Amino acid sequence: MDRPVPTITTGPLPSSRKVYLAGEVHDIRVPLREITVSGGEAPMTVYDSSGPYTDPGARIDIAEGLADVRGDWLERRGDVAPYEGRSVTSADNGFAEGARLTPAFPRARRPLRAVGGRAITQLAFARAGIVTPEMDFVAIRENEGRKAAAARDGEAFGAEMPDLVTPEFVRDEIAAGRGIIPANVNHRELEPMIIGRNFLVKINANIGNSAVTSSMEEEVEKMVWAIRWGADTVMDLSTGRNIHNIRDWILRNAPVPIGTVPLYQALEKVGGIAEDLTWEVYRDTLIEQAEQGVDYFTIHAGVRLHMIPMTVDRVTGIVSRGGSIMAKWCLHHHRESFLYEHFEEICDICRAYDISFSLGDGLRPGSIADANDAAQFAELETLGELTKIAWGKDCQVMIEGPGHVPMHKIKANMDKQLAHCHEAPFYTLGPLTTDIAPGYDHITSAIGAAMIGWFGTAMLCYVTPKEHLGLPDRDDVKTGVITYKLAAHAADLAKGHPGAQRRDDALSRARFEFRWEDQFNLGLDPDTARAMHDETLPKEAHKVAHFCSMCGPKFCSMRISHDIRAAAEKEKGMARMAEKFREGGQLYVPNEEPAE
Amino acid sequence: MDRPVPTITTGPLPSSRKVYLAGEVHDIRVPLREITVSGGEAPMTVYDSSGPYTDPGARIDIAEGLADVRGDWLERRGDVAPYEGRSVTSADNGFAEGARLTPAFPRARRPLRAVGGRAITQLAFARAGIVTPEMDFVAIRENEGRKAAAARDGEAFGAEMPDLVTPEFVRDEIAAGRGIIPANVNHRELEPMIIGRNFLVKINANIGNSAVTSSMEEEVEKMVWAIRWGADTVMDLSTGRNIHNIRDWILRNAPVPIGTVPLYQALEKVGGIAEDLTWEVYRDTLIEQAEQGVDYFTIHAGVRLHMIPMTVDRVTGIVSRGGSIMAKWCLHHHRESFLYEHFEEICDICRAYDISFSLGDGLRPGSIADANDAAQFAELETLGELTKIAWGKDCQVMIEGPGHVPMHKIKANMDKQLAHCHEAPFYTLGPLTTDIAPGYDHITSAIGAAMIGWFGTAMLCYVTPKEHLGLPDRDDVKTGVITYKLAAHAADLAKGHPGAQRRDDALSRARFEFRWEDQFNLGLDPDTARAMHDETLPKEAHKVAHFCSMCGPKFCSMRISHDIRAAAEKEKGMARMAEKFREGGQLYVPNEEPAE
Repeated sequence: MDRPVPTITTGPLPSSRKVYLAGEVHDIRVPLREITVSGGEAPMTVYDSSGPYTDPGARIDIAEGLADVRGDWLERRGDVAPYEGRSVTSADNGFAEGARLTPAFPRARRPLRAVGGRAITQLAFARAGIVTPEMDFVAIRENEGRKAAAARDGEAFGAEMPDLVTPEFVRDEIAAGRGIIPANVNHRELEPMIIGRNFLVKINANIGNSAVTSSMEEEVEKMVWAIRWGADTVMDLSTGRNIHNIRDWILRNAPVPIGTVPLYQALEKVGGIAEDLTWEVYRDTLIEQAEQGVDYFTIHAGVRLHMIPMTVDRVTGIVSRGGSIMAKWCLHHHRESFLYEHFEEICDICRAYDISFSLGDGLRPGSIADANDAAQFAELETLGELTKIAWGKDCQVMIEGPGHVPMHKIKANMDKQLAHCHEAPFYTLGPLTTDIAPGYDHITSAIGAAMIGWFGTAMLCYVTPKEHLGLPDRDDVKTGVITYKLAAHAADLAKGHPGAQRRDDALSRARFEFRWEDQFNLGLDPDTARAMHDETLPKEAHKVAHFCSMCGPKFCSMRISHDIRAAAEKEKGMARMAEKFREGGQLYVPNEEPAE
Repeated sequence: MDRPVPTITTGPLPSSRKVYLAGEVHDIRVPLREITVSGGEAPMTVYDSSGPYTDPGARIDIAEGLADVRGDWLERRGDVAPYEGRSVTSADNGFAEGARLTPAFPRARRPLRAVGGRAITQLAFARAGIVTPEMDFVAIRENEGRKAAAARDGEAFGAEMPDLVTPEFVRDEIAAGRGIIPANVNHRELEPMIIGRNFLVKINANIGNSAVTSSMEEEVEKMVWAIRWGADTVMDLSTGRNIHNIRDWILRNAPVPIGTVPLYQALEKVGGIAEDLTWEVYRDTLIEQAEQGVDYFTIHAGVRLHMIPMTVDRVTGIVSRGGSIMAKWCLHHHRESFLYEHFEEICDICRAYDISFSLGDGLRPGSIADANDAAQFAELETLGELTKIAWGKDCQVMIEGPGHVPMHKIKANMDKQLAHCHEAPFYTLGPLTTDIAPGYDHITSAIGAAMIGWFGTAMLCYVTPKEHLGLPDRDDVKTGVITYKLAAHAADLAKGHPGAQRRDDALSRARFEFRWEDQFNLGLDPDTARAMHDETLPKEAHKVAHFCSMCGPKFCSMRISHDIRAAAEKEKGMARMAEKFREGGQLYVPNEEPAE
C-alpha cells in the first residue's frame, strides 16, 4: 500500500516555543506555549491545544499517529484490559470499496475496556477520592504557568474559580459533576482537558467529510489546523462514505478529545432511512466508535415522542439533524425514542470506556422566533433526568444548548440549564443573536457565545461564516476558531478568571510602547495581524515605528500620552496637583505665567 | 478644469426597489427599501440609509452633488438667510497647491445661518411644539412601512419605544433631549435621521484620507459604499492635505449626516503642533465646517487639566486623538482646555447652523485594564455638565463613549451615562471586550456594541478588522458596517423594538422553506451569502433545492421537519396527543400496534 503523503501544518506559532511542565502528583509532561516578548518583559505562557504539531522536536507522521501518552497511565491503573474488538464491516465505511475506500489506519491496536464491569471513568475515580494523571494534567494546564494568584475582577454568576487550580480541585469538580475530562481509554494520544464552568471557557470546532468525499489527509489537516488556532475539542461530523476509516486517522493523530454524533453513522448503515434505525444498529455503532477511542458522544436521548407536536407550530421546526432523525423515527413508529428507552444500556457502554455524554439538544431553536419555547425547555428538563441516570452509572455528562436566541433570552437558558441539569457543564452552539446575517453567523453567534460563556457555559461550539450556506473551508475554520477563542476569552475576563487579563495587559503594554511584533505575537492570530499591518505600512522599519498607520506620527495619541507621562514624571508635583483639582472640583486657578 | 470621473457604486441591492412614502404633516418623500420575497409572502420594507444611489431613477453625478432635499423646507421656515461665507484659505487644504490640490467642488452655494441670533435647531422647534419636516421624515422612516404594531418581546432597560413612531413622538423625544436629528442647515442634501434610545439603534462608519492622499472620488465612494450597506451617519476623519475640498465633495454627495472632529483640521492649520493651537484657529475651523454643512462635531471639551494626571498610571494612557491633543495643550500651557473655557461660544456657533454636539470621550479607555477608571468617569460627569449648557443654548447633544471594556463593566457605562448626561443619546465606539485579537476587533467590539446597544446606546461607531493595525480598505469598511448592522439589530431585538423581528422571521421562514434566494435577499449582505452558497453548490438549480450543502438531501433536518409537519396535519389527533402527553408528563403508553 502506498503510504499517504501527509500535508499537515506543523511548526510553532510566531515567536513561540513549546514548554513542558511536570505533574504535581504523577510523572507527566504538560505542554504549554511560551510567547517571547521584547521590551524587557517576561515571556507570556498560554494554554496550548495544538499538540505536538507545534513542537519542532516532535516527529510527525500521520501514518504513525501521535505518541501514546496515556498508555502507561492506563496500564498502571490495571482496571482496563485489551480484548478482541468488533470486526470492521463494509457498512462501517458506507460500503466504500476499491479505490473509493479510504485505507485503514496502518497500525491496529486491540481496544481497551473496563475489566469486570468496573467503573473506570474519571467521575468514578473522583468520587473515590483519586487524583488521576488526567486530573493532574488539566490542573497544570489550566494555570497556564502561573505560580501565583493574579488580580481579578469580574462577575462570575456563581462560578467559583480558584486563584490556582490544584489536582484536588479538579477531582472535586469532577466528583460534583461540574467538570468533565472527555478521555476514552482508547484515545491514548490524548492530552487531557477539562470542561466546566470553574475552568477556562473552551471551544469546539466541527470537521467532517460529507457527500463530497475528502481524503483522510484533508480531515486530519482540518483537525490539526483547528487545534493550531485554539480548538479545545473537535467533533467529527462526517457523513457519507469512509466514516470509520477516516475517524481512525483522525483519532490516532488527535491530541484533543474527539466527539461524534453516532446517530449519523448509524443512519448511514441503514441507507439513510430514519425509520429503519434500530437499537441494535445504534448500539453496534456505539461499540465501534468506543473501540476507536471517541471521547464524547452526542446523544439526542432527550427528544421524546410527546415533545414532537410542540415543534409543529415553530417557524423553523426541528433544526438539529439528530433531533429530526429521532423525531421522524418516533413519529413513524409511534414509539418512544430508542435512545431514551435504552439510555441505561448506553450508560453501560460509556462507562466501560469512559466516554462522556454530550446530551444533545435535538429540539434547539433554529430561529429567533422559536427561542426558549416549550419544546426546547421540555427537552432540557429531560436532559436533567438523563444526567442523573448517567451520574448514577458514574458517567461524565455535559449538556448541549442552543441555537438561535436573542440577547434578552440568553440568561434564562443558562439559569434553567443550571437548575434542571444540576450544574453539569453546558456546551452551547452560539447562540446566534439574530437570523438576518447569513455569511456573518460566526459574528451573530459570537455575541451570544461570549454572553452565555460569561453566564457560565463551559464550552462553546464554534460557528463559521458558512453556517446555513455551505461547507467551511480552511479559512472559514480558522475564522470560526479565532472568533470563538476571542468570545471565550471575553467570557473569561468578564467572569473574573484570575489568569485571563494577563494577556490583554501584555498586549496593551506592547501596543502602548509601539512594540509591534509583540502586539502581533500576543494576539490570537499573529499572521493576520501582521499581514494587515503590512498592507498599510509594509516596511520592516515600520514594525519599530513609534506611531501607526492610522494617524501617522503627528497625530498619534499614544505618542502624545508618552509625552504626557514624561512630563508628569518631570513635574513631581503632578500627583499633588491632581489631588488638589480632585478636591477643588471645577475650580481652576490658571497659572500666573503660562509656559508659552 | 477636467471633470472628475465618478466611480461610484450605484444600483439597487438584489431584489430590492426604492419606495417613497409621503409625509404625515409635510410635503416630503421618505425613502425606504422594499425587498421582493417569493413564496406568496408580502414584500419586506426596511430602513434605507443608502440615499439616491440605490434608486435607478436618480441621476448620479458627483460633480453635481445630490438634489437639494431641504432647501424648500428651510426657505419656508424663513429663519435662516444666506450670507457671504468665510473665504477658503490655503491652510484649509493643508497648503496643498497645484496638482496636489484637490479641485474645489464645482458648484458653490452661499451658506445659510440663523437670522438675528434665532435658535433654529430641531431642539428649539421641538421645545416650541413645532413638528418640522425633519421630524416628520424620521418618524416615517423609523416605522419602516409598518402600519400596525407588531408582536414585541424584550427587555428595554427603561427605553420606551412606541408601537408606531409619530412625528409628535419624535418632537417630544427631541424636546426631552433624548433624541437628536443632526441636520446642519447647510447640508441640504440630507435625508434626516434620528439618534435616540427610543428609536432604532444606528451605526456610524468612519472614512477619511490620511497622510497618503486619496482622491475625492475615492472618499465619496467610501461614503457611498458605507451607506449602501447600512451606515446611518459617516464621520470624515481626514487628516493631511485637501481636507476642506474633500469634505465639500463628501457633503454635497451625502444623504446621511456627516460628522467631523474639527480639532484634527485645526491641528493641521498649526502644522501639527498641539501647543500652537489657539481658540481663534479652532473657532475659525468650526465656522469653516459649519458653512460647509457638517452635521455634528465631536468636541473634546470634557478633557480638563485636572483629569490628565489621572491617566498617567494607565496601561494605555490616552488613546483618543482629540483627547491626547487637548491633554498635551493643557499640560504645555498649564491651562484649562480652551474648548471647555469657550464652550458657550461653541454652542452659539452650533446653534446658528443647527450642528449637533457629539461630546467626545477624550479619556476613553484604550485597554481592558483602563476600563471604567477615574479619568473616564470624571470626564463623563463633565460631559453631563456640558450637556446642560448646550441644552440651555437649544443645541442638540449626544455623548461619546468607550472604547475597551470587558463585558461585566459595560452596563455601568450605560447606567452612568444616563445618570450623568440626563438621557442625552449615547454614541459608543464598540466597546471592545478583549484586547487580544488584533485583526478581529470588529468582532471583539461587536460583542460589546450589541450589549451596550441593548442597554440603551443610540448609535454604535463601527470598528473594522484593521483597527489598531492599518487603514481600512473597501472590504474592511463593508465588513465593519455589516458587523455593526447585525449588532445594532441584535440590540433592537433584545430591546423589544416592535419592528425588529419581522425581518428575522421572514428570513427564517425562507430558510425553512428552502427559498434560497429569499434567504440571501433578506439578509444584510445578499452578495456574500450567495457567493458562499455558490462555493459549495454553484448550480442555479441548487437555489431551489429542498436541502442544503451542509447535510445533503438525506440528512436535512428541515426537510424532516416538513415531513413531521405534514404528518401532523394528516393526523388531526396530534395536538390532542400533545396535550395528553404534556399532562401525563413522563408516562408513555406505547401504541399497541407499532406502524412497522
